Amino acid sequence: MQNKAIAVAASALQVVLVSVATSAQTPAKPVTDSGAIFPKGRRAPAANFTGTVWVQQLIEADSAFNIPVGYVTFEPGARSHWHSHAGGQVLLAMGGIGYYQERGKLIQILRKGDVVKCPPNVPHWHGASPTEAFMQVAITPNTARGRVTWMQPVTDAEYTNVTK
Amino acid sequence: MQNKAIAVAASALQVVLVSVATSAQTPAKPVTDSGAIFPKGRRAPAANFTGTVWVQQLIEADSAFNIPVGYVTFEPGARSHWHSHAGGQVLLAMGGIGYYQERGKLIQILRKGDVVKCPPNVPHWHGASPTEAFMQVAITPNTARGRVTWMQPVTDAEYTNVTK
Repeated sequence: MQNKAIAVAASALQVVLVSVATSAQTPAKPVTDSGAIFPKGRRAPAANFTGTVWVQQLIEADSAFNIPVGYVTFEPGARSHWHSHAGGQVLLAMGGIGYYQERGKLIQILRKGDVVKCPPNVPHWHGASPTEAFMQVAITPNTARGRVTWMQPVTDAEYTNVTK
Repeated sequence: MQNKAIAVAASALQVVLVSVATSAQTPAKPVTDSGAIFPKGRRAPAANFTGTVWVQQLIEADSAFNIPVGYVTFEPGARSHWHSHAGGQVLLAMGGIGYYQERGKLIQILRKGDVVKCPPNVPHWHGASPTEAFMQVAITPNTARGRVTWMQPVTDAEYTNVTK
């Protein structure tokens, strides 16, 4: 009787443990896949970025729409060089933890749902935090004025100058 | 000895069951919150929509950016009236199941990650499927040409004319 009870309990425990293990095998998605609304796309040109950055072009620049839209994934530590847009740019933070800084201002921390308006012609950069990736949608309007002017890399001193 | 073994097994089982129950209490988010990158916002004007539609304006129209960006949630069965944009519109499907139709064409089914370019001046409508909500980001460029021209409601016959 007691042996049978042990066997039943052990068997039930095993079933539960197996189901727990199975459920544990459904991994938490890594940050770079979080949300995963759009594919990660291709590596961004190393000439304009520090670290590993991926771009999926959602809308190409064309005369009908005139607003290239890209989905950008910055791996941890990665960031754009300083740059500006003659027509400005809108960033929609889609996931992870991002940094955004306009020249002469503090670094802003960006999280899912944050919206940034980079004013026309204001030098700025954006990227991931050192420990978490960052995903954004970037909309570049008014490209007739010019799309982007690239400047110097963001130094480690600039990148780590975060006010907590 | 056997009693102790039963007690240990039962106790272990209880711990596991409690942890399973706790994990089960983390609910699957309802479709309208899926992704939940942006807040749902306010009810869209009933004059231009059938059913319940929510809009969170992410970027207002202004002279610097000239691209209003909105996050729109269509509850199941809800859809816009027929309308057109003189400057076109870009839709980014963020979650759920959506419908999109241009006049004279079949209804397209939209899912997370789909990107639609509504051409300038082409009458069209968009909304949710009958059973699942739909979330989109809508970008309206070239508003200097005109933002939106509203037309008649989408009839039930039009809405249900879906080719599977």
